[in-house]
Amino acid sequence: MQLTRRSSSIEIPSRQAALAARGTLSVRRTISRSLRGCLRSMSTSHAEALSSSDAEQLQRAITEQGNLVRSLKSDKSTPKADIDAGVEALKAMKARLQSLTPASTSASSNPQTSILGQSTASSVAPSGSNLRKTNNAKKGAYTLKVPKGTKDHSPSEMLLRKHIFATITRQFELHGAVTIDTPVFELKEILAGKYGEDSKLIYDLQDQGGELCSLRYDLTVPFARFLAMNGQTYQNIKRYHIAKVYRRDNPAMSKGRMREFYQCDLDIAGSYDPMVPDAEVLKIVCDVLNALQVGDFTVKINHRKILDGIFAVCGVPTDKTRAISSSVDKLDKTPWAEVREEMTGEKGLDPAVADRIGEYVKLKGGRELLDQLNGDAKLTGNKTASEGLVDMALLFNYLSIFGVLDKMSFDLSLARGLDYYTGIIYEAIVEGSAPPGLKEGKTSAKKPTDADGEMDETQVGVGSIAGGGRYDNLVGMFSGSDGKKGLQIPCVGVSIGVERVFSILQQKAKDQVNPRGKDVDVFVMSVGDGLLEERMAICSELWQAGLRAEFTYKRKPKMPAQFEAIDRDQIPIAVIVGVDELREGKVRIKEQVGKEENSSSKGEPVSRTDMVSFIKEALARRQR
Amino acid sequence: MQLTRRSSSIEIPSRQAALAARGTLSVRRTISRSLRGCLRSMSTSHAEALSSSDAEQLQRAITEQGNLVRSLKSDKSTPKADIDAGVEALKAMKARLQSLTPASTSASSNPQTSILGQSTASSVAPSGSNLRKTNNAKKGAYTLKVPKGTKDHSPSEMLLRKHIFATITRQFELHGAVTIDTPVFELKEILAGKYGEDSKLIYDLQDQGGELCSLRYDLTVPFARFLAMNGQTYQNIKRYHIAKVYRRDNPAMSKGRMREFYQCDLDIAGSYDPMVPDAEVLKIVCDVLNALQVGDFTVKINHRKILDGIFAVCGVPTDKTRAISSSVDKLDKTPWAEVREEMTGEKGLDPAVADRIGEYVKLKGGRELLDQLNGDAKLTGNKTASEGLVDMALLFNYLSIFGVLDKMSFDLSLARGLDYYTGIIYEAIVEGSAPPGLKEGKTSAKKPTDADGEMDETQVGVGSIAGGGRYDNLVGMFSGSDGKKGLQIPCVGVSIGVERVFSILQQKAKDQVNPRGKDVDVFVMSVGDGLLEERMAICSELWQAGLRAEFTYKRKPKMPAQFEAIDRDQIPIAVIVGVDELREGKVRIKEQVGKEENSSSKGEPVSRTDMVSFIKEALARRQR
Repeated sequence: MQLTRRSSSIEIPSRQAALAARGTLSVRRTISRSLRGCLRSMSTSHAEALSSSDAEQLQRAITEQGNLVRSLKSDKSTPKADIDAGVEALKAMKARLQSLTPASTSASSNPQTSILGQSTASSVAPSGSNLRKTNNAKKGAYTLKVPKGTKDHSPSEMLLRKHIFATITRQFELHGAVTIDTPVFELKEILAGKYGEDSKLIYDLQDQGGELCSLRYDLTVPFARFLAMNGQTYQNIKRYHIAKVYRRDNPAMSKGRMREFYQCDLDIAGSYDPMVPDAEVLKIVCDVLNALQVGDFTVKINHRKILDGIFAVCGVPTDKTRAISSSVDKLDKTPWAEVREEMTGEKGLDPAVADRIGEYVKLKGGRELLDQLNGDAKLTGNKTASEGLVDMALLFNYLSIFGVLDKMSFDLSLARGLDYYTGIIYEAIVEGSAPPGLKEGKTSAKKPTDADGEMDETQVGVGSIAGGGRYDNLVGMFSGSDGKKGLQIPCVGVSIGVERVFSILQQKAKDQVNPRGKDVDVFVMSVGDGLLEERMAICSELWQAGLRAEFTYKRKPKMPAQFEAIDRDQIPIAVIVGVDELREGKVRIKEQVGKEENSSSKGEPVSRTDMVSFIKEALARRQR
Repeated sequence: MQLTRRSSSIEIPSRQAALAARGTLSVRRTISRSLRGCLRSMSTSHAEALSSSDAEQLQRAITEQGNLVRSLKSDKSTPKADIDAGVEALKAMKARLQSLTPASTSASSNPQTSILGQSTASSVAPSGSNLRKTNNAKKGAYTLKVPKGTKDHSPSEMLLRKHIFATITRQFELHGAVTIDTPVFELKEILAGKYGEDSKLIYDLQDQGGELCSLRYDLTVPFARFLAMNGQTYQNIKRYHIAKVYRRDNPAMSKGRMREFYQCDLDIAGSYDPMVPDAEVLKIVCDVLNALQVGDFTVKINHRKILDGIFAVCGVPTDKTRAISSSVDKLDKTPWAEVREEMTGEKGLDPAVADRIGEYVKLKGGRELLDQLNGDAKLTGNKTASEGLVDMALLFNYLSIFGVLDKMSFDLSLARGLDYYTGIIYEAIVEGSAPPGLKEGKTSAKKPTDADGEMDETQVGVGSIAGGGRYDNLVGMFSGSDGKKGLQIPCVGVSIGVERVFSILQQKAKDQVNPRGKDVDVFVMSVGDGLLEERMAICSELWQAGLRAEFTYKRKPKMPAQFEAIDRDQIPIAVIVGVDELREGKVRIKEQVGKEENSSSKGEPVSRTDMVSFIKEALARRQR
């Protein structure tokens, strides 16, 4: 643990310099100099982007440092502190190399590892750690850490996470949703071809014989696979799934982008009358975000058919529709001028066409925008756009009945990245971090503040907290995979950004959440003689009554240590056991009001038979 | 989906035979004959144990069938149906091979796959599926299935699973336990050397550059790693963790042995007075199993120090202690005669020593067995055994205070497989499937029914439902890995066999659990005119009131379809919306008593303002 922390600081050079200053061997100084230079090159602000020549330099320094350590060890006269310092520096360097080496370098620098299809203790590991022993932890030295882009979640984090999942689940279940579970890995071919360029981020399992598998990248493709396999049983299903997904992305932990993270999806599958399930999904999104108390939010909505109709009407060639759509998708993070540049440059769109698109995608608003578009003869003359406008009118009506229309912003710049959407699309934005001008846009599309296409990028794109849409053809892609006519099951769904919800609520709750992550009702403590067995018996009685109770696992615990446990875990009730009280068949019960209270009052004497009901009443009183 | 199902039946030969009968090319008949023979050899009752020569035969047939399909395709005159049938047979054969081939066969039959370190669409896959296209699901043909040894969990299964997890969590939290979460994969070196021979069952992630990682094999090693990293913060912690673990074992789904399955661990870490946390863990095990209502159970307990003392006293050389212990561990599944054979043969133990061990490990009982052992001067003269006996006396005392002593069976044959245990060890057995004689053994160790060392193997070893023990050195293995003095955190813990709990409860609940896996309170239906918007508005009101409510996503749903939804999901309350009632500001509310009731009563007219309270009262009444 210490090594990992240290390796990301610049503490090592000075430590190593100290060793060099004490040095008795000239070679030690030489190594230390090359090491210092190398480490200096690492401690830039772009340390993550370590160049491969830096890596090679570090690799060489590691080899040399390894030799130095061995020579120090073989010299009986070397002080132990020197050896220790040398070993520590070596390990820090290795940890540094391993954590910083770009993926391609470690793979290509030693192709033998993958050729062997294994990397056991005896093989030469790509990070050059030929001193590392993995077979025996007692002898071996290695960095104690979790894999890059993953983290452990502490008890207090888990307490908040459980609260979030329970709140969301409660809302989903109000709507009659059920949950399913799918394996964390799927056959590789199930995921293949579903994520476009992002397929390179899929984690594959090693080929250890048998099937080739990959860790799931999201929960949507496994759901579509599930429906394609079980479509006869589940012609319609409203299912949710809260589970971890995996992406070999470049982690940016500070921004909350991890390689292992939770997704939380709700999807309604089945053939129904238009926009009814779509409206319920949007109702659920609003109810969930309200229940979570993430703060004010807006749901941007659009319709793929309206967007495609706009592209057609503006003159985008059919084969360029998706490419242009993906340019539009960048408008939440990129100013129009740049997006236009991409369209006309890289994607070869006629500048006049781009300008016509620009006029449309600036529009945002509510029902009045729908009226405006319905008055646009060119647009209503396009069959696709017209279908989308009819859908949108229905949707607005249903959303109004569900009481969530005021949360919506009809936004023609919303395109959503994924190719598989076929109908309405949406994205919920937490207001505090929404792009400027959005809030105004909700009520008036006439004068968007970003009329000149400029946006303050520092404030943009961080507020997205949920997103989704209708995808009617994804299940058919699977069920048609055996060459037969596919089972088509239309779907509409949403993914709640639970990791982002977690960050928001964690920030909010910083001072409120119990850092120990536990909710205990009663602490059973003794005064004087220890009385371990009596404390055990009382706890047993409390557990039996459904009360959460703890005691100290010591025969004769000290009073201060017991009070400390009570304070630390903010336990509201103390049951105090003493010899005198026991003789009278009593305990003393003391409510914790504040730390200072602990030493003053001695608590109220209560007979053992009344103990449970007394405590339950006290707890109920505190709830109020 | 269909292919998978078909491939496990014997439908294919006849289909292929039909193709052959229609055949126009002589080669087609030839192939079909070899295919028939091959498939016949597969459809035995031991199909899962396909021998490698069968696999090779099937592999050859696949190659030939692939050639046939290509030649059929290149011949423009071939009827499409023939090509389709040929392709289908080929895919079935491949699926069959893939699902039946032992892992080693497919790896060794084509080492090139692992040499390349990848198996993309263009590489030659081990199952010889050179026709398979994985890059494009629309064009590609592949088997729609989950990976071997994994499964999807349906809504009704998830409902039961959620109940189990909630019940267990509730018990854990009564004792003040907190939960943590760790990544699903760990650095490969963290797991290395922790599982002995079973290390071969660890799933590795493909080396895609960067760190080498493996899927977690259990939750104990990640917990020890967590403590070693965060020991300063968590000098003591009572933590539980319910999560999936991964083992590349040969799956035996019928027996519930999967490659992906849940584990549920509770561990108490920290330095305390002897046997206090140990007793609480056993109390928790009993409370959890009682709360889950798995049926009668017994907890076998033993102590590693007593066991090691016995071995020493009987004359086992120190270096053979663990090996002999692992032989004793087999006594729950293997008769003594065989275990003795293993000790004296393979492990080279003096037969006289084995016989002395045999006398001890037959003993089981309660406190009286402890008295018996305390009267055994040879044993009490051994320091290790003596320490274990003192522990055991303390434990018996504490278990008696906790009210669970009657559930315990002190059993000297219990050894537990893992090397890392250092103190008491235990295993809970569900009575229904416990080995014969165990129950008697609980009260009297004098005359075990298996006095002659014979056991009815058909009844043995399937009942283990929880297990664990004390392991004081595992954390030190990690924290000492950086070459510094290790942080020693003693631990005691238990793993509840939740998958087995699930099987038992699923069997019990077969007729009771709602097969749709949902619990909905109210269904809002219409008579006559559809009234979609009114149904939506009413649902919205019900959700607002915290009632679980659904309606049909149709503008004009039919009455029978709506009643069917109510019956299928066993929804207790129907709110019926009709034009007349709406005019009067009313709905009709009908409680579902049974299917036959649906068509008779028309429900009770209730004013809209009273609707929610009326329903809440009705639901409360049903709860009683």
